[in-house]
Amino acid sequence: MNLKFLQRLVAPAETKIVMLILDGLGGLPREPGGLTELETAHTPNLDALAAQSTLGLTIPVGPGITPGSGPGHLAIFGYDPIEYEIGRGVLEALGVDFELGPDDIAARGNFCSVDAGGVLTDRRAGRLPTETSRELADLLRTIHIEDVEFFLVPVKEHRFAFVMRGPGLADGLTETDPQKTGVAPLPVRALTPESEKAARVVNRFVEQARLRLAGKQPANSILLRGFAGFPVFPTYEELFGLRAAAIALHGMYRGVARLAGMQILDVGGVTLEDEFTTLEKNWTGFDFFYLHVKKTDTAGEDGDFDRKVRAIEEVDALIPCMMALDPDVVIVGGDHSSPAVLKSHSWHPVPTLLYSKLARPDGIPVFGERACARGSLGILPAKDVMPVALAHARRLAKYGA
Amino acid sequence: MNLKFLQRLVAPAETKIVMLILDGLGGLPREPGGLTELETAHTPNLDALAAQSTLGLTIPVGPGITPGSGPGHLAIFGYDPIEYEIGRGVLEALGVDFELGPDDIAARGNFCSVDAGGVLTDRRAGRLPTETSRELADLLRTIHIEDVEFFLVPVKEHRFAFVMRGPGLADGLTETDPQKTGVAPLPVRALTPESEKAARVVNRFVEQARLRLAGKQPANSILLRGFAGFPVFPTYEELFGLRAAAIALHGMYRGVARLAGMQILDVGGVTLEDEFTTLEKNWTGFDFFYLHVKKTDTAGEDGDFDRKVRAIEEVDALIPCMMALDPDVVIVGGDHSSPAVLKSHSWHPVPTLLYSKLARPDGIPVFGERACARGSLGILPAKDVMPVALAHARRLAKYGA
Repeated sequence: MNLKFLQRLVAPAETKIVMLILDGLGGLPREPGGLTELETAHTPNLDALAAQSTLGLTIPVGPGITPGSGPGHLAIFGYDPIEYEIGRGVLEALGVDFELGPDDIAARGNFCSVDAGGVLTDRRAGRLPTETSRELADLLRTIHIEDVEFFLVPVKEHRFAFVMRGPGLADGLTETDPQKTGVAPLPVRALTPESEKAARVVNRFVEQARLRLAGKQPANSILLRGFAGFPVFPTYEELFGLRAAAIALHGMYRGVARLAGMQILDVGGVTLEDEFTTLEKNWTGFDFFYLHVKKTDTAGEDGDFDRKVRAIEEVDALIPCMMALDPDVVIVGGDHSSPAVLKSHSWHPVPTLLYSKLARPDGIPVFGERACARGSLGILPAKDVMPVALAHARRLAKYGA
Repeated sequence: MNLKFLQRLVAPAETKIVMLILDGLGGLPREPGGLTELETAHTPNLDALAAQSTLGLTIPVGPGITPGSGPGHLAIFGYDPIEYEIGRGVLEALGVDFELGPDDIAARGNFCSVDAGGVLTDRRAGRLPTETSRELADLLRTIHIEDVEFFLVPVKEHRFAFVMRGPGLADGLTETDPQKTGVAPLPVRALTPESEKAARVVNRFVEQARLRLAGKQPANSILLRGFAGFPVFPTYEELFGLRAAAIALHGMYRGVARLAGMQILDVGGVTLEDEFTTLEKNWTGFDFFYLHVKKTDTAGEDGDFDRKVRAIEEVDALIPCMMALDPDVVIVGGDHSSPAVLKSHSWHPVPTLLYSKLARPDGIPVFGERACARGSLGILPAKDVMPVALAHARRLAKYGA
């Protein structure tokens, strides 16, 4: 269902919605015939909530598609993740917690090696240590071209997030990375008249960077790709009339929440308890809360089945705090699956629970993949969860007479 | 999800996928409260496979739509059967095993009766015996117009497949069949400038055919409709990077597989065992195998419940041979339902099983319509099965970062 159609039906209400996202929640059994991480976890509070809820499985992007964190979150936030794309440069910047401005242009950067003739010899500069990368980034940080300033934030090894800030910049730029060695890096070309200044400035920046990096072998040049500006999406306020807040510890998730116009709350700590305390403290100020749990995904990506189980159990222990706030609608779900046995994101549908006093309970007292497969929310596109949540929050008017 | 989007994500892998299609697999109970053909069949091997698989029901074209074999197969092959249409003439030619070339134009032909004034008196020439039809077709087979040759292959009674082959032909032609008697057959008109030669040649062919059929009452003329060229679809190689092979005994299915660019394997026999032996013999040469079982549909269309049950049991007995090849992904499904009680294709969703070591098993040890309705593959468009199969074969990269 399309957001414009939904927007027409939005009606004001005093209700509150909590969306609790356990990153990479969905899993797989460790051995044939076994249980998934969520099925293994001892979750008395989530199970009790499930018994009063409608259960289902969400498909983040499409059948068989493994989503990155960006598309996975956009989908559960209600945006079609194929229609609403976030550029790679922007995701890189969000991932290092860089506060992108609306006019900034971001890119993915690599330190690389070139020979005396300027020919690329190593696209990754021997995967130099992150610490070296940091020093070199600082060296380039002070370059100014015309009225534009530059930010370089190390990601890992040779990789850094690159941001340029100044008036009159636009994306629509080709990449400098030729994706192979034995040739010179490419100059950036403007793909639109609006991006001509940006192209000129990037090319001059790369020139300056080479001068400053001369003799810093193996990292004596840089490559830039995935140029993108912070995209303008319709906000939760505009779409749904929701004053929305985000509680998340990492830049990527705070960044995607900002795309939806959510206010990023200061957690004032780094634990799960701090996140739930933040929810409690800000309860009266907002209509919608997105609370992000990172540990489940990290454990899944590390292939640590037991740690993922424990992460889920830690969340379970905090469910009573959340329910004590008496939310009108609670969604517990994920942005994608991250089965420990795969050590990566995956395409598997994600267990989802929708609690509300107005929900038609399935009467299934278990929160798990197979339990959710039997639920009456069905197996649905993740982007359809928000309309259902809004309905249960009495925030959608009748369609037609 | 659209094929262009999917194509962007395709990644190479060494894995193998088998798609085993039991034609017309879905059924209905013989009596109220009874079991379907598949539920009745004794299928220990499929049941054991189901226990390790994700189950679901596929909807070939859309809810309530009964598919022909063409659209049913295109859908399970991953092509939107509404977007990718196969002309009726092409299906008629494929159905009689005619090896259509890329520049051929095919049509459905009828022998018909006209009076002395050329007015149509019987559109079906009294449904003349197929044998007579064959003799008359041979009589017309030798007509040549300009540089174009013609093929007429009897289908049944008055019906034949008509194909013209020669340079500069195009479809985009009106039909000669006025769909009623008491009027003269229509001349063919070109709907595009490219099809003018084809129109001229067809009209001259019909004229010649009338001369040769003079006195052969009741079949003293012909009607032609559904002119179509062999459509150009993106192939499995282009779309998915798959070297794909088809194992099928009948022209229609081999023809649709050719549309997807599959290589048609020589079965060297006419039994189900021959088909599975062909799979085994060609195992190392391909990434994807489509294996078609016809008997289930024939029994369904004949209204023979018990024979359909036995056909399913015969397939079940061969499942261990297939599994001994250690495929990475197996799909067992159908192109549509053909319940014996209806003696025809039907719109009912089709039981489908997706086996893979990476599948999230539903733990349902039964392969049947009602078992599949409870599976976590859900009730999904048939065209979404291929993306899920590709994902389980690790042939799709992550979308977004």
